[in-house]
Amino acid sequence: MKNSRKQFIQQAGASALALCVSGALPGRLLAARPKRTEDPLKIGVAAWSFTKFKLDASLDMMSRLDIKYLSIKDFHLPLDSTPEQIAGFFEKLAAKGVTGYGVGPIYMKSEADVDRAFDYTKRVGVKLLVGVPEHELLGYVEKKVKEYGFHYAIHNHGLTDKRYPSVESIYEKVKDLDARIGICHDIGYSIQMGFDPAALTLKYGHRIYEMHVKDMMKSPSGEWLDCEIGRGAIDFAALVRALRKTKYQGVCSIENETHNLDPLPSIAESAGYFKATVKLA
Amino acid sequence: MKNSRKQFIQQAGASALALCVSGALPGRLLAARPKRTEDPLKIGVAAWSFTKFKLDASLDMMSRLDIKYLSIKDFHLPLDSTPEQIAGFFEKLAAKGVTGYGVGPIYMKSEADVDRAFDYTKRVGVKLLVGVPEHELLGYVEKKVKEYGFHYAIHNHGLTDKRYPSVESIYEKVKDLDARIGICHDIGYSIQMGFDPAALTLKYGHRIYEMHVKDMMKSPSGEWLDCEIGRGAIDFAALVRALRKTKYQGVCSIENETHNLDPLPSIAESAGYFKATVKLA
Repeated sequence: MKNSRKQFIQQAGASALALCVSGALPGRLLAARPKRTEDPLKIGVAAWSFTKFKLDASLDMMSRLDIKYLSIKDFHLPLDSTPEQIAGFFEKLAAKGVTGYGVGPIYMKSEADVDRAFDYTKRVGVKLLVGVPEHELLGYVEKKVKEYGFHYAIHNHGLTDKRYPSVESIYEKVKDLDARIGICHDIGYSIQMGFDPAALTLKYGHRIYEMHVKDMMKSPSGEWLDCEIGRGAIDFAALVRALRKTKYQGVCSIENETHNLDPLPSIAESAGYFKATVKLA
Repeated sequence: MKNSRKQFIQQAGASALALCVSGALPGRLLAARPKRTEDPLKIGVAAWSFTKFKLDASLDMMSRLDIKYLSIKDFHLPLDSTPEQIAGFFEKLAAKGVTGYGVGPIYMKSEADVDRAFDYTKRVGVKLLVGVPEHELLGYVEKKVKEYGFHYAIHNHGLTDKRYPSVESIYEKVKDLDARIGICHDIGYSIQMGFDPAALTLKYGHRIYEMHVKDMMKSPSGEWLDCEIGRGAIDFAALVRALRKTKYQGVCSIENETHNLDPLPSIAESAGYFKATVKLA
């Protein structure tokens, strides 16, 4: 386990380096490389926040937000992208000082899907793959993780997901597999299911390799609704302390689900709230 | 001094009540009235943030931001507004659950200007007037403050303002006048002049009746530039602690000076950062 975490940290650095090598103009590459002195709780954006926007517009928003880490979704970089398309994608990121640090979530319903996703992740040049595999594919996923050396984080998707509703349901399936297979903790789905995201983070943090951060509030009729970070029910100070205590080394990527036709103000408010919490908690 | 502070608190309540009496539909009025249980550090927006926008668009932005206090500027409610125009203005605010809690800044170069500003403030129905009076008018301002019972807060405007560059320069001019004459502390101009806004707030807090909150960062060439709260040099946790220690009862109004053609994302990030700081500092 310990080795796996160390490896994860090394790979995060290697990934940034890979971007620098593959990327665009030298003057701009420095900005894409994480500083050694920065707070280990890095803030990013999960590309799902930009589901209605093309890459250029998404990067313009990230530039305005001054956020440097992007979790890559296939609607911006399709799984069948050519090497030229991948290089062009990273040139655009580098021009804005943005690091694309992982891909996914990618659904996997067959061994061919798993093969395709691992091949894509390798060609993209990152070491973190967020996936949603059918249970019977987990043995095959483990084989691929050993072969490729990636971290594979399974995303919890709440009440309507029969495969992986909760963080716990993921852990139960992966705990005896290679330690590089773990969790992408979507804290919105955790609170929706009645769990305290900070407590879950403390309990399962040793296998959490990606964080999707958001907030949710309960409507008067008892329904959980996505909202800007700080307006809802999640205790972000407790979450940040839990991430620090478990020495989380990944990125905390804001995933905005409100106002998806006009997400920038919501992501901005969330980013401001989360940044202050990281500073003060 | 103590009486004056107590009066200020009472007047803030009376002002909210006045809005309720003058305002629109009963169902909407409750939202405009500050809750007794809320954190005494209220977050607002200074209308200068919306300098390029009409009232309706500004209120739509406040609605998106879920911010309930507006410092009123004359470009939204001119000094010569009729009673009907003033009533219409407050109906629009009430429809969004927004309280207009004060007016200004208003520049005053003659006794007629002072008369006009006090008459306007009375007709608007608020008890806080932010002003920039010529020094020789301060005696006349004091006479009007005693007559109208308003709080009169003078705005510091930094290096280029010969009258009131700093909080200290205001204090020196008003310290022997009626205690209801005090300071609108623009923390951006304070840091630009090399002062720590938190230290100034601790020192002069007993005469601070309005806060314009923003942040500034130093460019590589040494020039101070406005920026979103949390990105710049101001220590907001120290500021919030200073406001609490001095029992500040006014509003902390975000005044955004960046991106004034598209201010919403900047105000949103600032609001998120400030809200988290109020929660955690």
